[in-house]
Amino acid sequence: MAARPVRNVTHSRRLLLTAIALLLTACASTEKGSTSMKRSPAMTSDAAAAVSPALAHNTDAMLFGEVWKRPGLSPRDRSLVTVAVLIARGQTAEMAAQFNLALDNGVTPLELSETLNHLAFYSGWGNAAAALPIAGEVFTARNIGAEQLAPVAPSLLPLDQAREADRVERVNAAVGSVAPGLVEFTTKALFRDLWLRPGLAPRDRSLITVSSLVANGQTGQVGYHLGRAMDNGLSQTEAAEMITQLAFYAGWPNAFSAVPVFKEVFSQRAPG
Amino acid sequence: MAARPVRNVTHSRRLLLTAIALLLTACASTEKGSTSMKRSPAMTSDAAAAVSPALAHNTDAMLFGEVWKRPGLSPRDRSLVTVAVLIARGQTAEMAAQFNLALDNGVTPLELSETLNHLAFYSGWGNAAAALPIAGEVFTARNIGAEQLAPVAPSLLPLDQAREADRVERVNAAVGSVAPGLVEFTTKALFRDLWLRPGLAPRDRSLITVSSLVANGQTGQVGYHLGRAMDNGLSQTEAAEMITQLAFYAGWPNAFSAVPVFKEVFSQRAPG
Amino acid sequence: MAARPVRNVTHSRRLLLTAIALLLTACASTEKGSTSMKRSPAMTSDAAAAVSPALAHNTDAMLFGEVWKRPGLSPRDRSLVTVAVLIARGQTAEMAAQFNLALDNGVTPLELSETLNHLAFYSGWGNAAAALPIAGEVFTARNIGAEQLAPVAPSLLPLDQAREADRVERVNAAVGSVAPGLVEFTTKALFRDLWLRPGLAPRDRSLITVSSLVANGQTGQVGYHLGRAMDNGLSQTEAAEMITQLAFYAGWPNAFSAVPVFKEVFSQRAPG
Repeated sequence: MAARPVRNVTHSRRLLLTAIALLLTACASTEKGSTSMKRSPAMTSDAAAAVSPALAHNTDAMLFGEVWKRPGLSPRDRSLVTVAVLIARGQTAEMAAQFNLALDNGVTPLELSETLNHLAFYSGWGNAAAALPIAGEVFTARNIGAEQLAPVAPSLLPLDQAREADRVERVNAAVGSVAPGLVEFTTKALFRDLWLRPGLAPRDRSLITVSSLVANGQTGQVGYHLGRAMDNGLSQTEAAEMITQLAFYAGWPNAFSAVPVFKEVFSQRAPG
Repeated sequence: MAARPVRNVTHSRRLLLTAIALLLTACASTEKGSTSMKRSPAMTSDAAAAVSPALAHNTDAMLFGEVWKRPGLSPRDRSLVTVAVLIARGQTAEMAAQFNLALDNGVTPLELSETLNHLAFYSGWGNAAAALPIAGEVFTARNIGAEQLAPVAPSLLPLDQAREADRVERVNAAVGSVAPGLVEFTTKALFRDLWLRPGLAPRDRSLITVSSLVANGQTGQVGYHLGRAMDNGLSQTEAAEMITQLAFYAGWPNAFSAVPVFKEVFSQRAPG
Repeated sequence: MAARPVRNVTHSRRLLLTAIALLLTACASTEKGSTSMKRSPAMTSDAAAAVSPALAHNTDAMLFGEVWKRPGLSPRDRSLVTVAVLIARGQTAEMAAQFNLALDNGVTPLELSETLNHLAFYSGWGNAAAALPIAGEVFTARNIGAEQLAPVAPSLLPLDQAREADRVERVNAAVGSVAPGLVEFTTKALFRDLWLRPGLAPRDRSLITVSSLVANGQTGQVGYHLGRAMDNGLSQTEAAEMITQLAFYAGWPNAFSAVPVFKEVFSQRAPG
């Protein structure tokens, strides 16, 4: 065994492969023109099958053949869930494909744009920074311009005064004496701006927030946000299907860790 | 201080460096031929030493000089643990080197292939997607073809009916009323297919599952899977060394968080 | 909906864009010379604004316009916190910009070098491996040579015998019977070497350790290390501002999860 695996040589080989690919791609693109932007499932299937035929099969037949088509949660909502997981975990490899799929599934450019801004707060600036240039390429390729995005300061949705007062009281009690700066930005940046921006419905903001929390194992805060999601219109059937979608994209353990919290929220809201 | 750090300029510089590197690599590779695939520890050591001589030394002298050589867990098993951590955390930088090291250490291409498929379920599809092309390059460079991989539907290992009945009962009670879809795929995709695929022994599937759980701080599910790992043949000595290996690759805090769970499992299984 | 999103075509397109960018950059760099290394906020703002004007605004006006300028925690310390988050979460996209900003803010090359070595232990080797080449490029561009870094074995800071005896007792009790190897390396590699290296002050090692723990939701170990940080000189005001900085870079949920632990540590240390 060598003293240590070597990155440089591997990296050099990848650079060489890149150089070859650049030439091939340039030629191919010249011939194919805009068709090079279309999806070609066979290519990816071949690439995946060369490493794991079972994984390629599971992806094609089970994940896209069954899970994405299940009733109970629309393809559009599944895309929001999936995109939120990728951003929240910084999984750049699938972002371009999933951003495109989200737009194909009916997520609007404005909604995708707002999702990035929302998850900068809920999963950290570094994750948004990684997603930005990839979304930028997708937008450019689809001729999505600034006129389809929201301005910095749109007319905000009305504030639910009662719910906000309750939230302020809870946060002040829990955080006020510990981190006044956190309280300040939570109020002014999140609950009196971000959540009131009209470009993404509150129900959808809740959907991506819960997805982000589950994706990072942050179960302690799932209860509050799942309750909010259901207040905002997410049905129990949709929430249940959300867990199934999350199992595939955030991994089984994160889905299973979230189940007891979902169960508790469901039972608290059960009639009678 | 500038209003904001700028990615574009830095990125541009990296593109230029890449262009130069492509040319240099192309020339070098022409001369060196296949020798360019061999490891050259000195190069990486130099690169690491230019940033942190201590880290380069710790990697060479302590991690590869001591930890990987410790008795109690074979280099092959240490590779499975390490590869599982990288995939489960989406750490692509070290993947090519560690995939190669795993194959050198006796992990078969089939086992590595099954590891990717297994961790798609246990750490999320996006992580498998990031690892796939890197594994594909490694396989291509080593002339590993489809004939060394498992078919989509091999003859499965026999199902342990008693253990499966117990698992179904537990999952139904915990998840059944909350997310029926999750229950369905847990049964058909995981425990009546994935875990029974013969390409990776149940004991090794447990090894990578526990590694993935520890790597992501998912301690709540470590107990069940560590017990399963020991049922499947992992010794207590091996489990103890696994924590040491995980400390280096998943970080000290994740290793320490897992210790109480390991301790509990060890004590439950202690004779007497 | 296609059977599966396709990475290859997207990847090919990115390679083509890369080829074009390489040419454009090479030309531009030839004209601009060394000025290409300077920051040009407008460029990044434009790129971000093309995807999310709100996110670009939040980054410029709120994060860099307000948060980074808040009293209570110096820009230099905010850089240490931020860099620790990026390394601990493997967020490579922002690393070059933030490493440069850290050096501009007064973090020395030696301190940044020690930060990487420190976080290899506290967040895992794969994260350090991802950060190393990026730091290497930054060092090269700024002509930072080996003479500014610490040797492998510098004269160590004196060991606090009482605190170390207490730590050894606690770790032996908790870990000794479970994972002897972990105990061994915790003592010799961490507490009798890493923490005593003079290139990064103990207070700063605590700062990045706590940041790394919060960034990965490892709240169980925040209490011990925050107490150590305050023993090592971190003020309560600084700790409070640290949470605010972490909210933006590690995401709101991780900051909120850490608040109760900070509150408990603050109250235990309160006079009277």
